[in-house]
Amino acid sequence: MKRKVKVGNLKAGKNNAITDVKGVKVGHVTYHDEQHHTGVTAIVPKDNIFQEKVLASCYTFNGFGKSIGFMQVEELGTLETPIILTNTLAVGRAADGLIHYMLDKNPDICIKTGSVNPLVMECNDAIVNNIRDIIITKEDVYKAIDNASSNFKQGSYGAGSGMVCHSLKGGIGSSSRVIAIDNKEYTVGVLVNSNFGNSKDLVFNKVFIGDKINLEDKSKDQGSITIVVATDIPLNNLQLKRVAKRAIIGVTNTGSIASNGSGEMILAFTTANLVPHYGKDKVLNIKSVHNDNIDLVFRAVVEATEEAILNSLLENKTIKGYQKKVYALEEFKEVYEDLLIKESKDV
Amino acid sequence: MKRKVKVGNLKAGKNNAITDVKGVKVGHVTYHDEQHHTGVTAIVPKDNIFQEKVLASCYTFNGFGKSIGFMQVEELGTLETPIILTNTLAVGRAADGLIHYMLDKNPDICIKTGSVNPLVMECNDAIVNNIRDIIITKEDVYKAIDNASSNFKQGSYGAGSGMVCHSLKGGIGSSSRVIAIDNKEYTVGVLVNSNFGNSKDLVFNKVFIGDKINLEDKSKDQGSITIVVATDIPLNNLQLKRVAKRAIIGVTNTGSIASNGSGEMILAFTTANLVPHYGKDKVLNIKSVHNDNIDLVFRAVVEATEEAILNSLLENKTIKGYQKKVYALEEFKEVYEDLLIKESKDV
Amino acid sequence: MKRKVKVGNLKAGKNNAITDVKGVKVGHVTYHDEQHHTGVTAIVPKDNIFQEKVLASCYTFNGFGKSIGFMQVEELGTLETPIILTNTLAVGRAADGLIHYMLDKNPDICIKTGSVNPLVMECNDAIVNNIRDIIITKEDVYKAIDNASSNFKQGSYGAGSGMVCHSLKGGIGSSSRVIAIDNKEYTVGVLVNSNFGNSKDLVFNKVFIGDKINLEDKSKDQGSITIVVATDIPLNNLQLKRVAKRAIIGVTNTGSIASNGSGEMILAFTTANLVPHYGKDKVLNIKSVHNDNIDLVFRAVVEATEEAILNSLLENKTIKGYQKKVYALEEFKEVYEDLLIKESKDV
Amino acid sequence: MKRKVKVGNLKAGKNNAITDVKGVKVGHVTYHDEQHHTGVTAIVPKDNIFQEKVLASCYTFNGFGKSIGFMQVEELGTLETPIILTNTLAVGRAADGLIHYMLDKNPDICIKTGSVNPLVMECNDAIVNNIRDIIITKEDVYKAIDNASSNFKQGSYGAGSGMVCHSLKGGIGSSSRVIAIDNKEYTVGVLVNSNFGNSKDLVFNKVFIGDKINLEDKSKDQGSITIVVATDIPLNNLQLKRVAKRAIIGVTNTGSIASNGSGEMILAFTTANLVPHYGKDKVLNIKSVHNDNIDLVFRAVVEATEEAILNSLLENKTIKGYQKKVYALEEFKEVYEDLLIKESKDV
Repeated sequence: MKRKVKVGNLKAGKNNAITDVKGVKVGHVTYHDEQHHTGVTAIVPKDNIFQEKVLASCYTFNGFGKSIGFMQVEELGTLETPIILTNTLAVGRAADGLIHYMLDKNPDICIKTGSVNPLVMECNDAIVNNIRDIIITKEDVYKAIDNASSNFKQGSYGAGSGMVCHSLKGGIGSSSRVIAIDNKEYTVGVLVNSNFGNSKDLVFNKVFIGDKINLEDKSKDQGSITIVVATDIPLNNLQLKRVAKRAIIGVTNTGSIASNGSGEMILAFTTANLVPHYGKDKVLNIKSVHNDNIDLVFRAVVEATEEAILNSLLENKTIKGYQKKVYALEEFKEVYEDLLIKESKDV
Repeated sequence: MKRKVKVGNLKAGKNNAITDVKGVKVGHVTYHDEQHHTGVTAIVPKDNIFQEKVLASCYTFNGFGKSIGFMQVEELGTLETPIILTNTLAVGRAADGLIHYMLDKNPDICIKTGSVNPLVMECNDAIVNNIRDIIITKEDVYKAIDNASSNFKQGSYGAGSGMVCHSLKGGIGSSSRVIAIDNKEYTVGVLVNSNFGNSKDLVFNKVFIGDKINLEDKSKDQGSITIVVATDIPLNNLQLKRVAKRAIIGVTNTGSIASNGSGEMILAFTTANLVPHYGKDKVLNIKSVHNDNIDLVFRAVVEATEEAILNSLLENKTIKGYQKKVYALEEFKEVYEDLLIKESKDV
Repeated sequence: MKRKVKVGNLKAGKNNAITDVKGVKVGHVTYHDEQHHTGVTAIVPKDNIFQEKVLASCYTFNGFGKSIGFMQVEELGTLETPIILTNTLAVGRAADGLIHYMLDKNPDICIKTGSVNPLVMECNDAIVNNIRDIIITKEDVYKAIDNASSNFKQGSYGAGSGMVCHSLKGGIGSSSRVIAIDNKEYTVGVLVNSNFGNSKDLVFNKVFIGDKINLEDKSKDQGSITIVVATDIPLNNLQLKRVAKRAIIGVTNTGSIASNGSGEMILAFTTANLVPHYGKDKVLNIKSVHNDNIDLVFRAVVEATEEAILNSLLENKTIKGYQKKVYALEEFKEVYEDLLIKESKDV
Repeated sequence: MKRKVKVGNLKAGKNNAITDVKGVKVGHVTYHDEQHHTGVTAIVPKDNIFQEKVLASCYTFNGFGKSIGFMQVEELGTLETPIILTNTLAVGRAADGLIHYMLDKNPDICIKTGSVNPLVMECNDAIVNNIRDIIITKEDVYKAIDNASSNFKQGSYGAGSGMVCHSLKGGIGSSSRVIAIDNKEYTVGVLVNSNFGNSKDLVFNKVFIGDKINLEDKSKDQGSITIVVATDIPLNNLQLKRVAKRAIIGVTNTGSIASNGSGEMILAFTTANLVPHYGKDKVLNIKSVHNDNIDLVFRAVVEATEEAILNSLLENKTIKGYQKKVYALEEFKEVYEDLLIKESKDV
C-alpha cells in the first residue's frame, strides 16, 4: 500500500502499519451484502500468547463502550489473547469465539490452571449494517485469527466494514513510526477502527477542511473509536498506560470533541516484556525506558494514530449502507489532494 | 427460608434477601449432572430497564475477573439490563444471550437509538464443573430472566451451582437490612455468588473457626466473588460507588485476603433514581441523601454482605464435583451451631 | 478586554471570561522583579463556599503534578474552598494560607465540624522565576481571594506571571461560551494557567504555525497546564468529570503531545448544584441535564479552553526571565495576525 | 519493645516494625501540652531518595482526606521524598517544610532539573489537639527527618500524638513480617497512624470485644487512617498497588466500616527497585515476583497492618485531650489480656 499522507516528522516503519512491530499480525473476516457490512478483525500480538503474555495496559477516554477484558488487563498488566474487534452487538459472540479458540489451543486452561481473559473491542456499525441480525459467528473469530498475517487490508475490511468516521466511510487504518532510543531502533505501530466524529470538524493533517466537506447528513456524532498500540519498546505498565493515553491526541487532532456516544478505548502492549503464564522463574525482569526518553514515544503514538485515522478514510469507497449511503472521503478529493504526499510512492 | 445467622444489629428485611428491595427479582437456570454443576442467575432490578434505567456504580477490588459491562456503568452511571451471573467461560454466551434478550424487548435498539450495554459477572466453577464444555446457552439467559421472582433459592442454584467458598460449597447467598433515614424506611439488599477464600481463614459471624474446619484440601485460594447491592435509598453515583466499596468489608469479615486469583467485583444500584433512555425532560433530578447519613447505609451493606456469604455456605450440601468432592459447611455443624440463631424461625 | 480570536462557532459570554458564570470571581497577587516572576491566582466559585459547597469533579490527564485537594473532590464530589493557583514549590505555602483563610471565615471547622479540603493547583515557573526562593506567603492567598472580582487581568498576572507556553510567554487566559439547553441560556467559563508545549507544535485556531515561530530555544517541552472549568449548567459528578476531560482537547488543539513533564490537571464545578455542609435536609436534589444534551457542553468546553490558551499567549509581553528571556507571541504577529478577529472590538 | 500480640502465622521481623526493612528509618517530633497533642512523623525509605527514587504506589479506599503527593506517585510510580505524617490542618506547613528540606539537600531541583513531589499524609487530631492553632512548623519536618532512625517509638508520638482509634487512644503502630520467596527472605513492614473506628466494633486479633468496651462516648466514627507499607520484595507498580490495597483488610479486620469521614490512604514502596533521577541508563530493569507468589505478600501485609493497629492501641496511655478525655485500651485490660502473647518477651 502506498503511503498517502505524512503526519509529523518521525520516520514511518517499512509498511507503515502495526505489523511493522515484529511478530504482530492482523487478520479479517469481512461481510458485505445487501443488508450487512460488518466483520471481525483480529490483532495477534505474538504466537502462543496465553503461555507467554505481553505486557499491556488500557485507557478509556470515553467509556460509552462495551469492550470486554479491560478489567483484568488493568489489574494484572498482561494481555493473554489476541485482540478481537467487531460490532457492538457481536461482542458476546466474539468473546465466546475467542474463549473457544483459546481453549482449543491451551488444554491446560481451567484444568491445570486458571481461566482466560478474552479481549474484545467494539464499534457500532448500525448505520450501514443490519446489526440486529448479529451474523458474526464464533467461527469467524477462528478465521480472523488464523488469517492473520503481517500484510493486511485497510478500510472497509473486517470490523472496519461498517464504520462511519467524520460522517464518511471509516474503518481499519494503520500507521507506524520508527524511533531510536539509546542508539537502538524501535517501532510503534497503531491500528484504529474509526467510527467517530463529524465531517464539519474534520482536520486533515493539521489543516481544517471540515467546512469544505458538504454532506447533507446532519446526524449526531455517535460511534466510537477503538485503538490498538503495539510496540517493541521496553515499557512498564504505567508507561504503557501513558502511551495509550496519548493515542487520544491523535484522535482529537483529526477533529473530535469525544462526543457523548463516542466510546474511546485504547489497548497498548509491548512485545519487549513477556510474562510466562507459569511462574517457573519466581522473579521477572521488566525492562523500561527511563521516562526521560518517553516523549519521543508519545510523539510516535500521536503521529501514528492520526495517520492511521486518515488512512482509514483514504482507503475507502462510498457505500450504500443499510440505513443510509455513506460517502468516502475520496469524493471530496479536491479538498485534500494538495495535502497528500506528492507522487505517492510505496512506503 | 429461615434466617439462620444474625450478623450485626440492623433489622433484616421481610425475606432477608435482595428481593426485599421493591421490584427486584432473581431467577436461576441450574445444571447439575455428573460432569456439570453450573448455571445462570439473573438479577432483574426492575421491569423495562432499558427504557428507564437505574442509577448504578461498580467497584472492583481485585480485577482478576472477566465481568462485562462495567466500563459503561462507570462512564454513564446507569444500568440498562438485568445483571447476569454465570461461569467464567460462559461470559461470552451469556452476553450474547442478554443482548438478544434486550433486542427482543426493545425494537428501537440500534434502529432508532443506540446500542445496549450487557452486564455479565462471572466466577470460575472449574473445580466442580466441567467448565470447558461451556454448556450455558443464550436461551438459559432468557429463562433465568423470565423465571425471576421475588422468591428465589440460595446455595447451589443458578450461577451458584459450582461455587467453592472458603474451600466449602458456596454459591448464591442473600441478605437485607432495613434502615430509617429522615423517618423513612429504606432497604438495602445484597446478593453474592461466593467462590473465594480458604477454610483456614474462615470467620463465622465475628468468631474465627478456620482452625476447626479440618479439610485435607490444600489447594490455593482462587476463585472470586461477585456481589450485587440493590437499594431504594436515594443515592447519587459517587455514593453508589462508596456503597459498593463497603461490600468488600463484608467479604473480608468472613476471612479473606483477597488473594491474587480472587476477582472481587461489585455492582450497586438504586431504584430511587431512574434515568429515562430518551431525554424528554432535559433536566433530571437525582435525589441523594446527605453524606452525613451514609454511615448507616455503609453498615447495612457490610452486614448484609457478610450474612449473604454465610447464607451461601449454610444453604448448601456436600457435592461430588468434576475435579473433586467439596464439603458443605454443615458437615462441621458442631463448630458453628452455637453461633446460629436459636430455634431459627422464619425471618 | 477586546476579544482577539474566535475559536469555533458558539457564542462567547459577555466578557469572554470564566467570570461570565454568575458569582465566579478571580483575583491575583503578582510578583515581577529582577529575579521573580510569580504569584497567586484565586478563583472563587461563590461566597461562603464551605457552608454551601459547589458540585465538582477533577480529571488528571498527565499526573506529573503536585496539585492538592483532588483526592477529596474525587470522593465526595464537592469543592469547599476557593481554588488557588501558584508555582510548584509554593503549593505547601498556598495550602497553608488557604487553610488559615478558611479557618478565619469558618469558626466551626475542627470545632463543631470536620476539617477543610484546600484546593491548590500549580505550574512550574522556574524558567523565568527564581522559584527556589519561595517568596509566596500565606498572606498572598488572603489577598488574592480578597482581590477577586468579576473583572481580572489575563497574561502574566498572578500565578501566570512566570509561565512559558509553547516556548512563548504564557500565563492566565480565559474564555467563555453561552449555550441554550431546553430554551434556557447557560454559561461555560474556562480559566487556564498555560505552561506547556513547544513552539514547533503550535496550532493557532486550527492553523498550524509552529513551523513559522523561529525560536532558538531547543529546550524540552516541560511545564504543565492547570485548567478550571466553571458553569451554571445542571450537571452531576459523572458529567462534571466528562466535562473536565474535554478540556484536554482544547489543550491538544493548540498543539501538544502532553509530554512527560507536562502535568495536565482540570477542575470543573457547577454552581447549579449546591451541597450544604450541614445536612439539615437529609435528601438533596441534584439537577443534571440528560446526557443527550451534553455534546453541546463538551463543545463549549473545548472551544473555551482552546481560546483561553490563545488568550494567555496573546495577552503577553516578552520578558527577561530568571534563567532566560522568553518571547511573547506578539513578536511573531505577522504569522498569526490574519487569524485574528478583524477590527477587534470589545467582546 | 516487647511484642504483645501475635496476629496470624507468619514470622515477624527482628523488631516487628517497618524499620525491619533495611534502610527504612522513622523519626518523630512530638507536642504534648495542655492544649496540644500533635506532631510530625517522618518515614524515610532510604538516603538520597530524590536522586535515586523508590518504586511506589498508593491506594485510597476512602478519599475523605487531604494527603498531598499521591497524584504524581500514581502517574510515575516513584516516591522521591520522605513521607511526612501530620495533622490535617498542618498539611500545607508540612509540605512547605518538606519542599524546603528537599531543596536544601538537592541544589539541582528547579535549576538543573524539574521540581519535587512532596508526600504528606494526614489525620485529624481535633478531638485531643487544639488543631486550629497549627503549631507545626517547617522546622519540625526537618527535625523529624533528621531524627529518623531504625528505632522509634509507637503510640502517642509524632503524628500519632493526637489520634483516636476505635474511640480509644490511637496513634503510631508498626509491625513486620518476614517471608521467603524462591528461598530468599524478604521483609514487609507496616506503619500506621490510627485514627478511625468506634469501640463498639473493635475486634482484637480475631476476637470481637467491641461489646465489652464500655465507653460513654457516643461520638461518630470519624477520623482516618494513614498507612505506609515498606518492603524489599521485588514488586512492580501494579503489584505495589495490589499490596497497598490489602492493607485495608488489616484495617477492617480490627472492626471498621470505613465510615464516611474516615479517609483511608495507603502508600506502598519497595526498596528493591530504584529509579535514578537522571536517566543515565536509558533502559531500566524492574524486578518483580511472579504473581503466583504474591498471595504470601498479601497475607504479610494484612497481618502486619492488623498487628500495627493493635500495637497503636496497646502502646498508649489515657490522655486528657483538648475537647475530651480519651481512654487507652489498657483501661480495659481484663477484656483482652488473655489474647496477648503470654510472658510477652522481646520480639
